[in-house]
Amino acid sequence: MRVVVHEEKIDKFDLQIIKLLSKNARLNYRQLAEYLNTTRQRVSRRLERLEREGIIKKYTIIPDFDRLGYIYVILGITLTPGTSIDEQIEILKNDENVKVMERAIGAHNLVVHLLVPKDMKEIEKKITEITGRLKNVEKVDVTFITEVVKFELV
Amino acid sequence: MRVVVHEEKIDKFDLQIIKLLSKNARLNYRQLAEYLNTTRQRVSRRLERLEREGIIKKYTIIPDFDRLGYIYVILGITLTPGTSIDEQIEILKNDENVKVMERAIGAHNLVVHLLVPKDMKEIEKKITEITGRLKNVEKVDVTFITEVVKFELV
Repeated sequence: MRVVVHEEKIDKFDLQIIKLLSKNARLNYRQLAEYLNTTRQRVSRRLERLEREGIIKKYTIIPDFDRLGYIYVILGITLTPGTSIDEQIEILKNDENVKVMERAIGAHNLVVHLLVPKDMKEIEKKITEITGRLKNVEKVDVTFITEVVKFELV
Repeated sequence: MRVVVHEEKIDKFDLQIIKLLSKNARLNYRQLAEYLNTTRQRVSRRLERLEREGIIKKYTIIPDFDRLGYIYVILGITLTPGTSIDEQIEILKNDENVKVMERAIGAHNLVVHLLVPKDMKEIEKKITEITGRLKNVEKVDVTFITEVVKFELV
């Protein structure tokens, strides 16, 4: 059986909703309708489609990691050519310190974002442990985020 | 006049609110209160404090960039020692393609996240243009994100 997923085009109205929610994900249907000069019904219908089709993947918050007691570390990982990225993703996927993981091409094949309690010994241990579990690591670029200066997706 | 900012400690209840909202930023006071087995008033009081103190910096969405027609590019920028990072941040801060910018130490001093329409010539032009505006760039690692495999902040 072949499953045909019908993906509708994204229009200007969808993009307007997405932009507003990326600035404030807590806007309700009424507020969105007011901003866009339309009805609540029209907003809710579109928003349900955007969620159903996975165009909006997640509603989330950006916290102040520093105030929460964490250091935000990005590992830019380069694997030796021919290594299965899927396998490496499986190895790290359920690690509780791994918060964001991105498959990539270019300078790095895998970008791993860690939140680690503020303790440099703990951080060293965690980075060593994580990179040690991966196979065929050619290079790891370790970057410590000290401040999120801008965050405006879309 | 000296302004003393009183920063209260973050307790378990705050963390529970933050975790729930990081999974779904659209939960309302009633839903949060139900999950946490408490009152709406207590939730709203805490949430207002978390927002006011900037512990929750932003409510936002993670969209499917690919479906929106964009390629997500991360530039890991290393500046020559002694270069003012603040100055470089100022240069790029208002660029409409620069969506996320992080100040950092380690392999990179500045991490710049770009959303560029899916057109490799356009992407090359944009990367050249952006890195050309910066001073004292020692190295730029260009990484193209092909898939966000995990996203669970906090």
